[in-house]
Amino acid sequence: MQNPELGCLRYSIGAAGQRVELTPYLDAGVTNADSNWNDAFWSIHDVEHRGPGQAYVRTETNKTQFGAAFAMTTHAHVADESGKRELAQASAKSEGALAGIKFEAELSQGQTLILEKYVGICTTLQHEAEHLVKAAFAHSELAASTGWESLVVSHVDAWSQIWSQADIEITGDVASQQAIRFNIFHLNQTYRGDDARLNIGPKGFTGEKYGGASYWDTEAYCIPFYLAGHPEHVARQLLVYRFNHLEKAIENAEKLGFSDGAALYPMVTMNGEECHNEWEITFEEIHRNGAMSYAIWNYVNYTGDRDYLRTHGFAVLLGVARFWQQRVQWSENKGSYVILGVTGPNEYENNVNNNWYTNYLAAWCMRYALEVAKWLKTEHPGDWSGLTSAYSIDEPSTFKAWDTIPNLMYLPQLEGTEVRLQQDGFMDKEQLSVDDLKADQRPINQKWSWDRILRSIFIKQADVLQGLYFFWDDFSLKTHEVNYDFYEPKTVHESSLSPCVHSIIASRLDRMDDAYKHYLRTSRLDLDDYNKEVHEGLHITSMAGTWLSVVEGFGGFKVKEGKPCFNGKIPHAWQRLQFRINFRNRLLAVVVSEDGTEVNLVKGKPIEVEVNGQAVQLDTPSH
Amino acid sequence: MQNPELGCLRYSIGAAGQRVELTPYLDAGVTNADSNWNDAFWSIHDVEHRGPGQAYVRTETNKTQFGAAFAMTTHAHVADESGKRELAQASAKSEGALAGIKFEAELSQGQTLILEKYVGICTTLQHEAEHLVKAAFAHSELAASTGWESLVVSHVDAWSQIWSQADIEITGDVASQQAIRFNIFHLNQTYRGDDARLNIGPKGFTGEKYGGASYWDTEAYCIPFYLAGHPEHVARQLLVYRFNHLEKAIENAEKLGFSDGAALYPMVTMNGEECHNEWEITFEEIHRNGAMSYAIWNYVNYTGDRDYLRTHGFAVLLGVARFWQQRVQWSENKGSYVILGVTGPNEYENNVNNNWYTNYLAAWCMRYALEVAKWLKTEHPGDWSGLTSAYSIDEPSTFKAWDTIPNLMYLPQLEGTEVRLQQDGFMDKEQLSVDDLKADQRPINQKWSWDRILRSIFIKQADVLQGLYFFWDDFSLKTHEVNYDFYEPKTVHESSLSPCVHSIIASRLDRMDDAYKHYLRTSRLDLDDYNKEVHEGLHITSMAGTWLSVVEGFGGFKVKEGKPCFNGKIPHAWQRLQFRINFRNRLLAVVVSEDGTEVNLVKGKPIEVEVNGQAVQLDTPSH
Repeated sequence: MQNPELGCLRYSIGAAGQRVELTPYLDAGVTNADSNWNDAFWSIHDVEHRGPGQAYVRTETNKTQFGAAFAMTTHAHVADESGKRELAQASAKSEGALAGIKFEAELSQGQTLILEKYVGICTTLQHEAEHLVKAAFAHSELAASTGWESLVVSHVDAWSQIWSQADIEITGDVASQQAIRFNIFHLNQTYRGDDARLNIGPKGFTGEKYGGASYWDTEAYCIPFYLAGHPEHVARQLLVYRFNHLEKAIENAEKLGFSDGAALYPMVTMNGEECHNEWEITFEEIHRNGAMSYAIWNYVNYTGDRDYLRTHGFAVLLGVARFWQQRVQWSENKGSYVILGVTGPNEYENNVNNNWYTNYLAAWCMRYALEVAKWLKTEHPGDWSGLTSAYSIDEPSTFKAWDTIPNLMYLPQLEGTEVRLQQDGFMDKEQLSVDDLKADQRPINQKWSWDRILRSIFIKQADVLQGLYFFWDDFSLKTHEVNYDFYEPKTVHESSLSPCVHSIIASRLDRMDDAYKHYLRTSRLDLDDYNKEVHEGLHITSMAGTWLSVVEGFGGFKVKEGKPCFNGKIPHAWQRLQFRINFRNRLLAVVVSEDGTEVNLVKGKPIEVEVNGQAVQLDTPSH
Repeated sequence: MQNPELGCLRYSIGAAGQRVELTPYLDAGVTNADSNWNDAFWSIHDVEHRGPGQAYVRTETNKTQFGAAFAMTTHAHVADESGKRELAQASAKSEGALAGIKFEAELSQGQTLILEKYVGICTTLQHEAEHLVKAAFAHSELAASTGWESLVVSHVDAWSQIWSQADIEITGDVASQQAIRFNIFHLNQTYRGDDARLNIGPKGFTGEKYGGASYWDTEAYCIPFYLAGHPEHVARQLLVYRFNHLEKAIENAEKLGFSDGAALYPMVTMNGEECHNEWEITFEEIHRNGAMSYAIWNYVNYTGDRDYLRTHGFAVLLGVARFWQQRVQWSENKGSYVILGVTGPNEYENNVNNNWYTNYLAAWCMRYALEVAKWLKTEHPGDWSGLTSAYSIDEPSTFKAWDTIPNLMYLPQLEGTEVRLQQDGFMDKEQLSVDDLKADQRPINQKWSWDRILRSIFIKQADVLQGLYFFWDDFSLKTHEVNYDFYEPKTVHESSLSPCVHSIIASRLDRMDDAYKHYLRTSRLDLDDYNKEVHEGLHITSMAGTWLSVVEGFGGFKVKEGKPCFNGKIPHAWQRLQFRINFRNRLLAVVVSEDGTEVNLVKGKPIEVEVNGQAVQLDTPSH
């Protein structure tokens, strides 16, 4: 964890009165399980040996021409009470894609063969191609000479630093405690935040599914985790990733017939280009574009770093707002702007009209872009003038569109109620609830034909609730309650991103049994393999959602007008919940128990927070 | 044309003072242009020679294990004024997939080298596998000994018989005349009606696109052509094809969660199994199922062959009606039965609710099944009792469902008008007409992204008009006019099946300029290559639609209560239209000119017809 370009392994083997042969090797011949015709994803350039105990492989990916070098230095020795005896390599062999080094020893009672393998891993993301092997060996040799014990110390130290800020303690419920730590561990394994060219795949590095590419999960679920649990630059890197892809997003929108700098971010991407191949996802699941703007708002609201808007953020907000501005159309019939032919986050619908989540988010994107534009114009007129010329912004027509369209956006609602309707025609569906489903019919995505899923009322993840969660303060508590009661019984939670949002909302509505049930489902999804799919890899981005359900749900954490607010409530099964929050260069420690919520300043300057609606001044770091 | 298992070629070459070598061969090494990795669709078993001038190849298709043998007998001779001299083969060579026979000759002034190739083509559809080669050589040798001139006579004779009944003469407009004959020729080239295991692919045998499989085109467009232009058994074979697939259609419906004998016919098929691989087509374009019932009604209405209903037809009507009965669902909201999540014939929409065409057709299917069931019960109680037990029909609940559901079917209509709405939400689209499209934006399926096409108002083929055409007498002339005026301006006709229906309706509405415009487009589609796609093959099934636009459109032909009715009107460009109709063992000749419509009996017993609403008794064959 201390050095991302280093991987180390150590084996000890005891085998009294046996001859032992051990051959550590590097294998460049890996393929993806789901590749066509076993096609390799990279070409192998070198598979070679160097000095004693040393070998390396060098490869280059076929599509993207990333070079990678893996250099190993191995040591083996036999240890017993009297000390240790270094082994020389018995032989070295490179064959096909394998470079191996063989060690041999006769072991007697009380003797152990110990093998150490120090592998430097360098890619052309960080190094010139011609220096790759040299750099990989430099890591490998430095590690070998540093030695296993010292490396373990610095690895543990790096993790301790992470845990000191990121740990969550749940007292009284081992299953909950185990689950949240499992999730926090994996989130930190996946993303470090030191390179804006990298992002977070839904499976991280734990499985091939989704191909390591990035989805809107990053913006909608992961940003808050990295904001609160890491230094600010980590979340910022994730935003810069999208800023750097703006040009490709504009090209992507152009391919679909948009113009004048409208940007449509891809559904799935490595380098900014759309990698998904189904039209109903790439062309219609356009809500993802709104998540790009929402993440910027979230970051700025959390960190107060308005500078980011000037240098990066507004350009993205502009491209996204321009997209919506062109994607809406006026309906004479409804006397409103409508958005036809979309797929919302609830992917158990397809090609629907006026998905409430999408329409609301689109309107919000234009409003927020207008707010930031006006702020730039007033506070940073020089920047504004630069931006209007760089991005050819016609101020009057742009301001007018961003003012008019959101106010006239059609937002479907069930007449006479506070229910926001998922989409046009939702009430024509057969009005069933999940209780009407027999157990042998679930999960419906494994039991039903696709058309039957689509025309049923059952919801993969409730996107109206997702929208209400994002824009909580825009609605009354009554509205939240009514919609939760309307959608929760129809939701089968067959998206891993579903239960966490339901848990947060249930906490906010004081439905602690519901909140706890959903928390267990989201947090133990992989540990208990609820969906029978853990062989495909872990649900990394949903783990960030789990974290949200603890910190924003049970912890009641929210940032309002630059102030951290807490309103903790824990489920009956828990005695105490403790977590820490990084907030604008302070470290805050929060304890929630039956006695209430307590917030302490651990590090940083004095700050005012709000606990259960009461302002609390925190002056002195408490420990 | 006289022998479907025979193909003959003849070449003559004049080349004074030259040595000529000619090698006729059989090539078993054919592949499909669109195959993956150039995979062959069949395996080659034999490529061999036999006696002088003879060779054969034998193959077997890989998926379906159809065996095929191709046996050739070749003759070559040199002819001049003094007579002809037979050539012996110079050599014979089989190499790889090619079996060739070489002829050589020195030609002098006035001499011609004539080569004849007689190929017998036999498959395991008609022969035992072990007799294939023998049978193919029997055809080949018989043809060779019959000789070219006699074979030409019987070929021409077979075609003359076809043309004597099928020809359409258009006087005064060469482009129209050429087009209709081109279409009639190809329709007869494609389907002969002597084998109920065969059907009609949208490209016939003229291109690989659609893989030779069958679509609803057969039922919706081709049946009337074969009814009127051929003996009755030809159209009947096409119906029997679907009857034979009933069990597979029931299995297909079961896969999608239907039960109790509900049948869903495949969108695309060779042998009854679904061959298409897109869910939005196979799961949602279910209107095709209604076309199966409509074709039965069409056939019985035309031929009067009610016996077919007892032996074959009702079983299909039952399976289809059971499908619709399960596929509808009650909407509390609308107080009606609705059909959600379908794609209509207008494939520029996807996954819509309450497609008017589908809903109307589904209701009609249940009504017609009920009508036939009641007729069987009354007139053929023995058959009815056999059917109820063979197909487990619970009479009371079945009759009730087929009575209730159609009467409560939701049929979207534009309030305050006679406009039938294509689907729910249609009026929320931007209300544009094709005139608003710039020329460089067409065809939109080559210029626009798929999502943009879907959410636009533009229609590939107007399915409301298709439904109104099918069920013309259910609606007032006013309704037809209003809907034509509503939909025609929104229709881009990017389906080859679109203009023919518009042409018929325009004729019926007395809009002869429109009718003529659409006729030219449908009839000359391939000759003039309007859609720049003739390299993919000819639009065979749309050619049947063209025939409809002449006979039902300009000829005003319709069968009402067993009586042929005519109401001819021709476009200004034409002087006269003449066609013949096979009707219940009579041959009727129809002439339409500015002077009106004249109908004569050419062959068969006296009959009463209706011309322009007046009954006319035809007693004596007129020529």
